[in-house]
Amino acid sequence: MREQELLSITVDPVDETMMRRAQARLDRLTKPVGSLGRLEELARRLAGILRTERPSVARKAIITMAADHGVAQEGVSAYPQAVTPQMVLNFLRGGAAINVLARHVDARLIVVDMGVAAPLDPHPQLIVRKIGYGTGNMAAGPAMTREQAIEAIQSGCEVVEDEMRRGADLIGTGDMGIGNTTASSAIVAVMSGEPAERVTGRGTGVDDSGYARKVRVIERALEVNHPDRRDPLDVLAKVGGFEIAGLVGVILGAARAHRAVVIDGFISGAAALVAAGLEPNAAGYLIASHRSQEIGHRIMLERLGLTPLLDLEMRLGEGTGAALAMPIIEAACKVLNEMATFEGAGVSQKV
Amino acid sequence: MREQELLSITVDPVDETMMRRAQARLDRLTKPVGSLGRLEELARRLAGILRTERPSVARKAIITMAADHGVAQEGVSAYPQAVTPQMVLNFLRGGAAINVLARHVDARLIVVDMGVAAPLDPHPQLIVRKIGYGTGNMAAGPAMTREQAIEAIQSGCEVVEDEMRRGADLIGTGDMGIGNTTASSAIVAVMSGEPAERVTGRGTGVDDSGYARKVRVIERALEVNHPDRRDPLDVLAKVGGFEIAGLVGVILGAARAHRAVVIDGFISGAAALVAAGLEPNAAGYLIASHRSQEIGHRIMLERLGLTPLLDLEMRLGEGTGAALAMPIIEAACKVLNEMATFEGAGVSQKV
Repeated sequence: MREQELLSITVDPVDETMMRRAQARLDRLTKPVGSLGRLEELARRLAGILRTERPSVARKAIITMAADHGVAQEGVSAYPQAVTPQMVLNFLRGGAAINVLARHVDARLIVVDMGVAAPLDPHPQLIVRKIGYGTGNMAAGPAMTREQAIEAIQSGCEVVEDEMRRGADLIGTGDMGIGNTTASSAIVAVMSGEPAERVTGRGTGVDDSGYARKVRVIERALEVNHPDRRDPLDVLAKVGGFEIAGLVGVILGAARAHRAVVIDGFISGAAALVAAGLEPNAAGYLIASHRSQEIGHRIMLERLGLTPLLDLEMRLGEGTGAALAMPIIEAACKVLNEMATFEGAGVSQKV
Repeated sequence: MREQELLSITVDPVDETMMRRAQARLDRLTKPVGSLGRLEELARRLAGILRTERPSVARKAIITMAADHGVAQEGVSAYPQAVTPQMVLNFLRGGAAINVLARHVDARLIVVDMGVAAPLDPHPQLIVRKIGYGTGNMAAGPAMTREQAIEAIQSGCEVVEDEMRRGADLIGTGDMGIGNTTASSAIVAVMSGEPAERVTGRGTGVDDSGYARKVRVIERALEVNHPDRRDPLDVLAKVGGFEIAGLVGVILGAARAHRAVVIDGFISGAAALVAAGLEPNAAGYLIASHRSQEIGHRIMLERLGLTPLLDLEMRLGEGTGAALAMPIIEAACKVLNEMATFEGAGVSQKV
């Protein structure tokens, strides 16, 4: 993909007419008007996204992208970098939290190597789209080139398009990558203009000195690279990650095809900020699954205009929040499709 | 059931040893310690409730109890009393929100007539435990006698015991009854000592004058009846409802048998307050599914020491919140049972 092509990706606005029609039906169902709260809002949005009065999201896929981060060498994570490939293998064997939760909600799990810093043996469940063996250390220079960022976005688009061809009608995002909360905090710092310490959390659990180091590393990365907030691709390339760039592509590819994207937590949120920076209409296709414990997540969601469905005090990533939100989204569609109307059921209306 | 028998219902405390063992296992699973937040708390609690390190809640039942309220004649609801039997028929035909959501989460729905003010034709899906044709008008005298309250609690116990015999390992509660937010507000006002206006909401959607009337009616009910907050059975009889009393029995019966009870919203919360008033250990078996839009719900949950799993701005009742929370509770058990450990998966620990 050339930069020109990427920058010309356009996403249609959601369909307001279908949203109104869905609302009109919701108001005739056997319940007090509005009494199903955010379920009704979800049903309406899905109608607008899928362009139908009777939206259904029966076929779910969660795309979990993994990559390594050069900035890990600065000691910003509580875990060693070897955990990234180890956890990818855990995903492929079915033992990670995202495997359990994807099975639970009947979602296909797609694991993508976007740039793990180790060779991974071929595996039928692993999609390899390696842009490199981990990014460069953003504390010393750009994480990747602009061309690599574009290539990763393109890969994400292709991965989600393959899944939609298989029939997926609801896409969840997930991530794995030691160091990737550092990259995500850097992205939200630039895009929001907030100081690093206001958008940086403890990731997988660094101690106090690790936390102070993490904040300083992000500050240094911003000084060294001067990412330009008016150019989201510049931000992504300089302080992002290969998995984050891939998820930008997943979001844009799905939104372009009129599919809803359930974004997981902090890392997926960073990808969503970049995607909405590149194409503001993409935000209309996003459903925020949960509120992460990472402090910068709140600022991301505010900028995206999203309110998360869940707040279960989670901070794991992998797509675990996205998985847990999926049954709620499905429930919203079923309410719209399956409930009786006041007339049909012979139930009296409000006096 | 005689009063003496009811008052001797005892519930064991949850098993702290099993909770500690579950926690020890959670800490060995391939995720940062504590990173699954409230899912881990749920898994731990289910271990303590079900007395096993590997709790499972595969067989779910939602018990939705319906009854009418004499106080409806005071004009406290936006809907006519005829809606109670109409909605029971809607439940039996499968067209209500709770039918859609119970099917969605694969829970058996049990509909119980605890005291609808109309004869209902026999139906294979309807359990009839009618205590009366609606309660008395609490604005003029007690809603029911103490003996009726005990009989309703006994019925609730028997209904849940039947379901547990069929194998149910997770019980949800639900309600239907025009006027029942008025009764529930009265219960929480007495039990918390808060003034009526601080615990009264708009129910299914009364307008401003209806709301003012509802508050005055509750104040009058408390003046006329003098319910004694130190005697939860007195409160239940004087300002409760037959479905609320039945749900008290469901909660006590399930807790006594070491089963978790997922309480729905405001009406189920009123039943939970009474149940925990009768037997404080019962609170350990309760899982608050969602935060209702009814303002008094927050005060109820605080008194019960519960934090709801969901806040979807719902205010429908029927068990809809309980249904939506069930997949999260199941997910928590599956995480504990199915995830790999660090040793087993060969994943490095924290540095």
